[in-house]
Amino acid sequence: MTPPEPADVTRVTCVGAGVIGGGWAAHFLARGYDVTAWDPDPEAESKLRRLVDAAWPALVQLGLAEGASRDRLTVAPTLEGACAEAQFVQESAPEQLDLKRDLLARLDAATPPGVVIASSTSGYPMTDMQTEAADPSRLLVGHPFNPPYLIPLVEVVGGERTDPDAVAWAARFYDTTGKSVITMDRELPGFIANRLQEALWREALHMVANGEATVREIDDSITEGPGLRWAFMGPCLTFALAGGEGGMAHMLDHFGPSLKAPWTRLEAPELDRKLYDGMVTGCAEAAAGRSSADLVAERDQGVIDVLRATGRLPGQPVPGRGGAPS
Amino acid sequence: MTPPEPADVTRVTCVGAGVIGGGWAAHFLARGYDVTAWDPDPEAESKLRRLVDAAWPALVQLGLAEGASRDRLTVAPTLEGACAEAQFVQESAPEQLDLKRDLLARLDAATPPGVVIASSTSGYPMTDMQTEAADPSRLLVGHPFNPPYLIPLVEVVGGERTDPDAVAWAARFYDTTGKSVITMDRELPGFIANRLQEALWREALHMVANGEATVREIDDSITEGPGLRWAFMGPCLTFALAGGEGGMAHMLDHFGPSLKAPWTRLEAPELDRKLYDGMVTGCAEAAAGRSSADLVAERDQGVIDVLRATGRLPGQPVPGRGGAPS
Repeated sequence: MTPPEPADVTRVTCVGAGVIGGGWAAHFLARGYDVTAWDPDPEAESKLRRLVDAAWPALVQLGLAEGASRDRLTVAPTLEGACAEAQFVQESAPEQLDLKRDLLARLDAATPPGVVIASSTSGYPMTDMQTEAADPSRLLVGHPFNPPYLIPLVEVVGGERTDPDAVAWAARFYDTTGKSVITMDRELPGFIANRLQEALWREALHMVANGEATVREIDDSITEGPGLRWAFMGPCLTFALAGGEGGMAHMLDHFGPSLKAPWTRLEAPELDRKLYDGMVTGCAEAAAGRSSADLVAERDQGVIDVLRATGRLPGQPVPGRGGAPS
Repeated sequence: MTPPEPADVTRVTCVGAGVIGGGWAAHFLARGYDVTAWDPDPEAESKLRRLVDAAWPALVQLGLAEGASRDRLTVAPTLEGACAEAQFVQESAPEQLDLKRDLLARLDAATPPGVVIASSTSGYPMTDMQTEAADPSRLLVGHPFNPPYLIPLVEVVGGERTDPDAVAWAARFYDTTGKSVITMDRELPGFIANRLQEALWREALHMVANGEATVREIDDSITEGPGLRWAFMGPCLTFALAGGEGGMAHMLDHFGPSLKAPWTRLEAPELDRKLYDGMVTGCAEAAAGRSSADLVAERDQGVIDVLRATGRLPGQPVPGRGGAPS
């Protein structure tokens, strides 16, 4: 059996009631889908509804699809019930390999043949997760960024036993729902964006661990510095501009020799108590009294504003901002 | 002799007519300073004026200080002439240690006593650069981000022989000119933001070198993903939000074990011909016909839009965007 055409999908199943699973549910609801959710947590329904409610004002501002409604979220009491009529399944369970393996096998058993099942895993290759499933060919990774209802990127990649047609289908489906898809042709631990941000993140952990910078300094150094550029121009093109009219060639001529300078650390730090506490305390200080909800609202508003400001909200022309020459 | 109060400075000397030196000149001109520039290049004056002209529309949009004018740029024929009446000197010469050492000694000899001399170096510790100067106490690093006339961040740090008062003065002065200052209390190769972005950059180079991702995929993965967040919220607080209501603690509990997963490479790649060409070609492809000037204009407009959108342009309230709770 083949899956429905991506544009014909109306029902999506979201597994997992955490931040990512709830974020996916909010995304699909806002795009006008019926969403069935499941999580073994007895509090799943209230958690999910709270997550969706928190996301909704941002989604209203972005513009809801016709017919989109929070009332179209159903929380199923069983995994089997959640998957029985699914046209697409998004799994967002905790990052534990054994758990993912077993869960994906159960989802595969419960979902109609041919329907694609995507995992939100932030790091495991599907090859390692699809080992227990009867039909591994429809299992793939659809890795979102937080919050999935606002950040466009989804990295799509299959495992060794995934059907390339399933990968192509998922890419088209995500695209239909308004996501920005990068389809990878090979499994790479951490995918692309996570590998990049993980490199930065490890460096940040080292700096905190060694007392070289505080969480606030690290965050400020990004938001007041390179982060302002990365909202609309990636690190490669940004660095090319540092080469002036000579572009990347000049940049590499100029800075190439200093690439070997000891500018980043190489081993991940021990996540010992001191580092753990330093990060937790540092983040609390940086939050400066703002609650998690305050920060979520601030972040959401910021993403919308950045999207609008950089011309990526349809129908929202930016005064004075010219389009790219054709 | 002590330097003038930061608020009393009216004359700044910019040494170097490259992208960074020219960007600093544009910044100080826009803030209403008299700028004297010098560079040994016989084309220095035309290069500088071209750089300032390219930056000016963005600066007009940001709002010029009273009396600000491009006519207040003077290009001096000699280093000594450029420094004779300086109240602050910003050195932005090429990244070569011997060159920086000699140049800083010459600048020190030519500049009135007590006046602070800052280097834009993107990586050398001042301790290593101040070795030849008669008065190393006023030499320090003021590391900007490109373009210096738009990106607020300046990292300020002295060397072993730098007077802490000079460091404090420079931080106050940059702040007066509208920059966002991080004062570091110790020398750290690559400072803070560069260390972070260098980690990301090395990972990107590895991926291109290994054929794992293209320049465009790398750039898209940032601008469609984490880069959208980093324009207004740094990586630590962003990751804390991934922990949901449990914040950073939950995030570390959840993802801590996977920190050791092989998500980033550890050694810088050989910058061989293949990588070199791959980066250059990849950037040209990503530019898709846009000239360097087009990209600069696009980037500048983007930074302004992001600044405005995230409420960091004074007098530019963003519709629907609430301030942080007090």
